[in-house]
Amino acid sequence: MAAKKEAKAEKVETQGMTTRKSDDFSEWYNEVVQKAGLADYAPVAGCMVIKPHGYAIWEAIRSWFDARIKATGHRNAYFPMFIPEKFLKKEAEHFKGFTPEVAWVVEEGEQGKERFALRPTSETIIYDSYSKWIRSWRDLPLLLNQWCNIIRWECSATRLFLRTREFLWQEGHTAHATEKEAEAEALMILGFYKELMETQLAVPVLTGGKTNRERFAGALRTYTVEALMPDGKALQMATSHNLGQNFSKPFGIKFMDRDEKEKHVWQTSWGFSTRLLGALAMTHGDDSGLVLPPNIAPTQVVIIPIIFEDSKKAVRKEAELLAKRLSIKFRAEADLRDDCSAGWKFNEWELKGVPLRIEIGPKDIAKKHVVLVRRDDGSKKPVPTASLEREVETELDNIQKRLFMKAKRSLDSRIAPAKTMAELEKAIEAKKMVKTEICGAEACEDAIQEKTTATVRLISENETARGRCVVCGKKAAHAVYVARQY
Amino acid sequence: MAAKKEAKAEKVETQGMTTRKSDDFSEWYNEVVQKAGLADYAPVAGCMVIKPHGYAIWEAIRSWFDARIKATGHRNAYFPMFIPEKFLKKEAEHFKGFTPEVAWVVEEGEQGKERFALRPTSETIIYDSYSKWIRSWRDLPLLLNQWCNIIRWECSATRLFLRTREFLWQEGHTAHATEKEAEAEALMILGFYKELMETQLAVPVLTGGKTNRERFAGALRTYTVEALMPDGKALQMATSHNLGQNFSKPFGIKFMDRDEKEKHVWQTSWGFSTRLLGALAMTHGDDSGLVLPPNIAPTQVVIIPIIFEDSKKAVRKEAELLAKRLSIKFRAEADLRDDCSAGWKFNEWELKGVPLRIEIGPKDIAKKHVVLVRRDDGSKKPVPTASLEREVETELDNIQKRLFMKAKRSLDSRIAPAKTMAELEKAIEAKKMVKTEICGAEACEDAIQEKTTATVRLISENETARGRCVVCGKKAAHAVYVARQY
Repeated sequence: MAAKKEAKAEKVETQGMTTRKSDDFSEWYNEVVQKAGLADYAPVAGCMVIKPHGYAIWEAIRSWFDARIKATGHRNAYFPMFIPEKFLKKEAEHFKGFTPEVAWVVEEGEQGKERFALRPTSETIIYDSYSKWIRSWRDLPLLLNQWCNIIRWECSATRLFLRTREFLWQEGHTAHATEKEAEAEALMILGFYKELMETQLAVPVLTGGKTNRERFAGALRTYTVEALMPDGKALQMATSHNLGQNFSKPFGIKFMDRDEKEKHVWQTSWGFSTRLLGALAMTHGDDSGLVLPPNIAPTQVVIIPIIFEDSKKAVRKEAELLAKRLSIKFRAEADLRDDCSAGWKFNEWELKGVPLRIEIGPKDIAKKHVVLVRRDDGSKKPVPTASLEREVETELDNIQKRLFMKAKRSLDSRIAPAKTMAELEKAIEAKKMVKTEICGAEACEDAIQEKTTATVRLISENETARGRCVVCGKKAAHAVYVARQY
Repeated sequence: MAAKKEAKAEKVETQGMTTRKSDDFSEWYNEVVQKAGLADYAPVAGCMVIKPHGYAIWEAIRSWFDARIKATGHRNAYFPMFIPEKFLKKEAEHFKGFTPEVAWVVEEGEQGKERFALRPTSETIIYDSYSKWIRSWRDLPLLLNQWCNIIRWECSATRLFLRTREFLWQEGHTAHATEKEAEAEALMILGFYKELMETQLAVPVLTGGKTNRERFAGALRTYTVEALMPDGKALQMATSHNLGQNFSKPFGIKFMDRDEKEKHVWQTSWGFSTRLLGALAMTHGDDSGLVLPPNIAPTQVVIIPIIFEDSKKAVRKEAELLAKRLSIKFRAEADLRDDCSAGWKFNEWELKGVPLRIEIGPKDIAKKHVVLVRRDDGSKKPVPTASLEREVETELDNIQKRLFMKAKRSLDSRIAPAKTMAELEKAIEAKKMVKTEICGAEACEDAIQEKTTATVRLISENETARGRCVVCGKKAAHAVYVARQY
């Protein structure tokens, strides 16, 4: 095909990726995030600009999750980003957990200086409102969520999406009449998170509880969704917290129950952030750039006309028509730019990770077919124009499944068991996630971190401990997964 | 009908509105915003909580506008909320305009203190990125928008949605190769804004340019969309600015044009905020609460079963079925709560402004009809259940149109001409918007404000000046609208 030849001739000139994923993972990540148009460094130290392509993926993720929580009775709201210092202090552990990274705005008023934290998370400001809004069992459950920016004034090195002073997230905050309902809510959301990661982002995850040492500051129990990145580090994708009555007591969130007794509510909070875009890039990206799962790709199919002077008009027209046809069912567009070659376009759309490319030239029109090119494996296949919708649907489906299966096989192959500290250290050095058992003492978790810089990422949901603690040799209480983390 | 009787009996007990719109407009507004569940005062001075009902209306407004700008090639992105002080200072007039209301975060670093403004608007932080991203005419036009929170540290009295230290908005920022394209963009957006206000919010508006005195700090020309509230004050609903090269020069946003000459880009910026919810409440609300135009009502139809013990099960089931049927085409729900009466529900949904209520009781089921009750005029009408979709569609359409026409007649009746300052003063005192003519000298605008506290809201698009300046008597340059403002 003509297209192939032309593309090759152009490739040399195109400004694409220069670092290979296997050569320097960290540099590769930095490059792919910027060149694919996901994000850019901001002129403010520690901050990022989320560029249109990155933001469009965030919108796709947001839409999916927003529909899911609305269908289960949650509603969105918006609370102030300024949190009075005294609120943060009300739950002691919470205050201790967040204070080091808080940015403050100071107001000099008549009663002296007052400090407001820029929300590092919104439990305290939201629960102050809850204490005013909740009076009776009729007001429960209260199921709210907000999409907003979050400020954590980190001072360690900035990594786009993974460690920035400002990021975007959703935070759900619910109040219930009983402990049981709160626990069910925390677990239902955990299920949504797992579904989001696996069916939309095609990133396989492990779910389970956090140990006391690792749980959210102020939570009774924290459930987590963890993925393993290609460099062997775990990435916490989302967390769901059963807060018990830890906040309802200091904030006085009480309700009159059906039995006419006044009780404190039971609460949950849960969230995921724009760091998911980092996980997405790291998990599926390759040496040519981003690879997007079709379900959340802002553009699923791009149509590129192969232009020769004598057939230019007809080919452009056909490309435009196909884009219109496909747009009924898919997120499709034709790249009709006149000022760059087909080869240049191939590279650009590959860099951006668009799952499926359609090439159409004069010969293809004559043969009444087009050429489908998959981003994930580069395979090419001519398909009849008449059955294009069906073919595109099948291929998008195949790509979504293959990306997940590939990542799942990779995850499975990088989980190693360890019964001794020596085995654990060796596996962590080999960039594995380690499945082991611990007794539950915080000192043993400390010891693991000191030796390996890895931490317990989660307590397994499915396995129970049968052996001995990998550190102290006492009877184990938990089967856990240990890894270095982002 | 049974429903009517029951409703009356209940009304006394219901906690609804206590202030009449005609008695104390300001207090009525405060009450309707809080009781209808739009917003609440936050525990942080000057801030608000946008409650679920208010946020859902904001989401409806956002969806409409987001689709409109995406269809015209704009994309969303997200820029940091922290703006280095030196950026704000780059455009002198802009800095002067915003500095008084800026909240600062101070970082004590090794090179001394650095101050970051919490964005009062994002021109400067965004245009720093544009100066890096734009190189060639191929990069133009650049058409971005962001949905975010904005901080303006006001110290005057807080008014929910109208004057708060934090609010939500969209801000569009575009860069073009020519002055003509930038002007066309600013005007196209102005058209979208007018369409949003009139076809979605059912709020009639006047559009036109701002005088130099009133234009955006840093803009070449500002176009505005102004509505007149029932208390005679104008509310600026949205603005669209042609920034010329006022920012591209200090920020060095240059491109190599097709003629191989380096040029500065031409820019626009434009926005509307959550204050639209205030305009909505003020324009259509009545003594029973909010009245929502169907196009942006989160719930368009509520179905309320009229419960009697012996027919309870059948009526509830029918209400549920109808809600399912209507949900295919409308935003409909059934209020099946067991713990409050139909009358209590009527009042609550009236307070929230839901455009259409459907009452269904055992007699209605027997007659195979339901009763439609319009929120805007209280009219009731039995309609056959078989043709319910058609009837609902017609009524929603009628409500949307009537709300706009009613508001339009009110606006028209409150515009008064003035040829002298005496006439102008009298009309402003009578809570009118005044149509008059001015010479264009800033001193004359100052004089109007000193005498009346009103300002020139806009220069008429459609009329040209024919007479004398209302202040100085010199030849008039502009036909303008003058009013007090929010």
